[in-house]
Amino acid sequence: MNQRARTAMRLTGLLFLLLGVSMIPSFIVAVLYKEPTSMASFAGVIFVFAAIGGILTMSTRDLKISIKMRYGFLIVTLAWLLFSLGGALPLTISGAIPSYVDAFFEMCSGFSTTGSSILTDIESLPKSMLFWRSFSHWLGGMGIIVFVTAVLPNIGIEGQLIASAETPGPTMDKLTPKYSDTARNLYLLYFGITVVEVILLLFGGLNLYDALVHSFGTVGTGGFSSYGDNIGHFTSPYVRWVIIVFMMMCGVNFNLYFVMFRSGIRAMLKDEELRWYLAFIAVPSVLVTVSLMVTGTFTDLFKCITSSVFNVLGMITTTGYGTDDFTLWPTFTQMVLFFLYFIGASTSSTGGGIKVLRIMICLKLIRRGVALKIHPNRIYTIKVNNRPVQQEVVTNIANFIFFYILVVAVSMLLISLNGFDLVTTLTSVLTCIGNVGPGFGMIGPADNFSMFSDFSKIILALLMIAGRLELFTFFMLFSPHYWNPDKA
Amino acid sequence: MNQRARTAMRLTGLLFLLLGVSMIPSFIVAVLYKEPTSMASFAGVIFVFAAIGGILTMSTRDLKISIKMRYGFLIVTLAWLLFSLGGALPLTISGAIPSYVDAFFEMCSGFSTTGSSILTDIESLPKSMLFWRSFSHWLGGMGIIVFVTAVLPNIGIEGQLIASAETPGPTMDKLTPKYSDTARNLYLLYFGITVVEVILLLFGGLNLYDALVHSFGTVGTGGFSSYGDNIGHFTSPYVRWVIIVFMMMCGVNFNLYFVMFRSGIRAMLKDEELRWYLAFIAVPSVLVTVSLMVTGTFTDLFKCITSSVFNVLGMITTTGYGTDDFTLWPTFTQMVLFFLYFIGASTSSTGGGIKVLRIMICLKLIRRGVALKIHPNRIYTIKVNNRPVQQEVVTNIANFIFFYILVVAVSMLLISLNGFDLVTTLTSVLTCIGNVGPGFGMIGPADNFSMFSDFSKIILALLMIAGRLELFTFFMLFSPHYWNPDKA
Repeated sequence: MNQRARTAMRLTGLLFLLLGVSMIPSFIVAVLYKEPTSMASFAGVIFVFAAIGGILTMSTRDLKISIKMRYGFLIVTLAWLLFSLGGALPLTISGAIPSYVDAFFEMCSGFSTTGSSILTDIESLPKSMLFWRSFSHWLGGMGIIVFVTAVLPNIGIEGQLIASAETPGPTMDKLTPKYSDTARNLYLLYFGITVVEVILLLFGGLNLYDALVHSFGTVGTGGFSSYGDNIGHFTSPYVRWVIIVFMMMCGVNFNLYFVMFRSGIRAMLKDEELRWYLAFIAVPSVLVTVSLMVTGTFTDLFKCITSSVFNVLGMITTTGYGTDDFTLWPTFTQMVLFFLYFIGASTSSTGGGIKVLRIMICLKLIRRGVALKIHPNRIYTIKVNNRPVQQEVVTNIANFIFFYILVVAVSMLLISLNGFDLVTTLTSVLTCIGNVGPGFGMIGPADNFSMFSDFSKIILALLMIAGRLELFTFFMLFSPHYWNPDKA
Repeated sequence: MNQRARTAMRLTGLLFLLLGVSMIPSFIVAVLYKEPTSMASFAGVIFVFAAIGGILTMSTRDLKISIKMRYGFLIVTLAWLLFSLGGALPLTISGAIPSYVDAFFEMCSGFSTTGSSILTDIESLPKSMLFWRSFSHWLGGMGIIVFVTAVLPNIGIEGQLIASAETPGPTMDKLTPKYSDTARNLYLLYFGITVVEVILLLFGGLNLYDALVHSFGTVGTGGFSSYGDNIGHFTSPYVRWVIIVFMMMCGVNFNLYFVMFRSGIRAMLKDEELRWYLAFIAVPSVLVTVSLMVTGTFTDLFKCITSSVFNVLGMITTTGYGTDDFTLWPTFTQMVLFFLYFIGASTSSTGGGIKVLRIMICLKLIRRGVALKIHPNRIYTIKVNNRPVQQEVVTNIANFIFFYILVVAVSMLLISLNGFDLVTTLTSVLTCIGNVGPGFGMIGPADNFSMFSDFSKIILALLMIAGRLELFTFFMLFSPHYWNPDKA
């Protein structure tokens, strides 16, 4: 057998092992809550995955893995598909989600940290199954491969290239010389934030199960809840503000926390993307608050501020948690929230979307464009953090945004075959590719995606993964260039 | 008095004279149809404008005009505003459109060749007033300044710079060494096309009035009709296909007709933008036809093809003429038509929108982006008509599209204050900035814009002009750079 096939076998084996292992906490939940069907389903799937993974890795244990960048893209995309396809098995086998397409949609939504659901009655599901889909947010949040690289540093020297294909955002600072160290640091931070949120939620009166599920949903910027009315279930302002703070924290470039640890919060706040991110939270929050107060949607100012900030953060961090059905709010408010679909969180955060850095550079491009029309012979440089941005980076960002628009347009056309209204059609695509969660129209925070055709569910599920991998990693596999490297 | 003030006086005078003269045909229509109120209104306005124009031009008749490019932008924008503000006077004075804001909206829609209307009962208006708003399409179609430059070649040596600020599209070929000759050639072609369409419509049984009104609407890619049910009023397939052919012709880069005259139709068809334009007509037409037949919206194939092609052309050429209320069609069909908002006609045509050339380059950028991700070190050049496109042009196009998106977003936010549904809010902005005409939701082909607030009507009216002038010409006047040229 040749080297390439053996590498593929070893990687597949590692992924199967990892997926099997990642189901163990959910199995434990099934044991604790005495859910025999779920126990059996998880146990069976874990056994089969461990067996497959064990055989594949043992038979290739002498292999030194070294992956070309081109194959990195393939591995990342296949890993996300494998996790979603495999993760859906316990849901369908146990009968919790009888349709495998529905279960696949749900797990794509989980691993991609989207949070859109096909469930019409969330609370009727076994607790272990709800735990599993929330846990997939947490796994997805930092990226399966970052996880793999941190836990299994022997995966190969080109790990960073793979991560650059997967980690959201155009740049990723090297924090330590060795990539696996960086990944481990990020992972520890991620773990630490989760633990702190769990503890704070326990203080708010949540039981351990609810605290875990909603911490996974927040830290992974996912949005799954174990309750049908989402965070609306928790009326305590304390709980809501804890989740607000953690949503905000997880929409920040994680590398900036290391800047903070090294050089203090002032150094962190000098980052331009962070400032824009905070502005993109503050301005919409004020607009929504004013709109809701003026129209009399709320009468209590504090409640109004809480709801406004919560739902603005739910959108911009692409978490998708919500406390209210904003499709019933005034049009202006809805429009403000609608635009947050197009922004998304910071680069190298756990959030999705186009990302603040790209939008920021895009706005600088517009300003330069106007200036150039007036003074065609002057030279204007795009700067971020007072450093000029290379033309190549600017071009990449423009390419990304155009590609995003193209994918959105084609997907909307396909989804429109369902015959739903235009708002539902438009926002279903935007919320899935942006990994947000709720839409407008028939798929608002109080609704779900159950009425879409299987074809649409598969399209939307793939869009979530494509959006999570920032499009190119996913779509380049469809390019003839990819498969035929010698083609010009 | 200084040179600059005298230049401003002379230009303003010329514009007033021109606007007065352009109302004479409508005055004649009022005489012929015995509409005394309209006659008096037109006569009064013409007299006042001629007097103002006469005084201003006579008092500056020795002036040699030479305009800096920076001021060209200002003149163009002010000319469109002046024409819309002045053109609205007869409508309000005669009582045909009692609200001056409504009349301003209607004339902005006319001169910008948009075709959106605030009229709830079109046929109740005097024929001369309907003639005037349709005639404004025709004037607007080729651009007021191209008109001025062709008719009055003494306006100054920098005329071409002004025209490049006004003529749609990123490029305008120099057809003859002298700019005013080019303008005159274009104008003669425009005039010729109009005459041919009028004759063909007369053959279709239309009276001269209807033939003129609908030729103005087609050739200017405007969309105003003298009937409430628009082209739906004419059931004759012949009439519909005449309009189809002329809509298609007027969405083509007019310079290509000179290529055709010189080198034949084959040379013309080699143009890449033309090919994409034809593809952007053909593919949506087929999709719409299939969708309408499969869903049983039509049972007669020929009728279905006519309606499909008609409405696709109505959208892509930004004419906005329609035969059917497409808001009642299947969602998929609506989505296909919706996307045509984002394409628009060819550069240097009379149509609006983003323009096929820009979309084409944008798609090539995406393809290059994917290729670069796979082979980061190769060099891919964007080519149009087999010639490489300068990076500067590509950057300009990206800037334009981003700016377009930004203007659309901000405008939607302002329009959402009306509290209408999201679809109405979104499409009102898209149809106005793209100079199309009808929207979706509450502003479909069978509806109108009368229910918007005055504030919204003014925003939408200004958007039409901004869209017609390809944004930068309009918006750079709001930039501090423009007014303070020494600022870095």
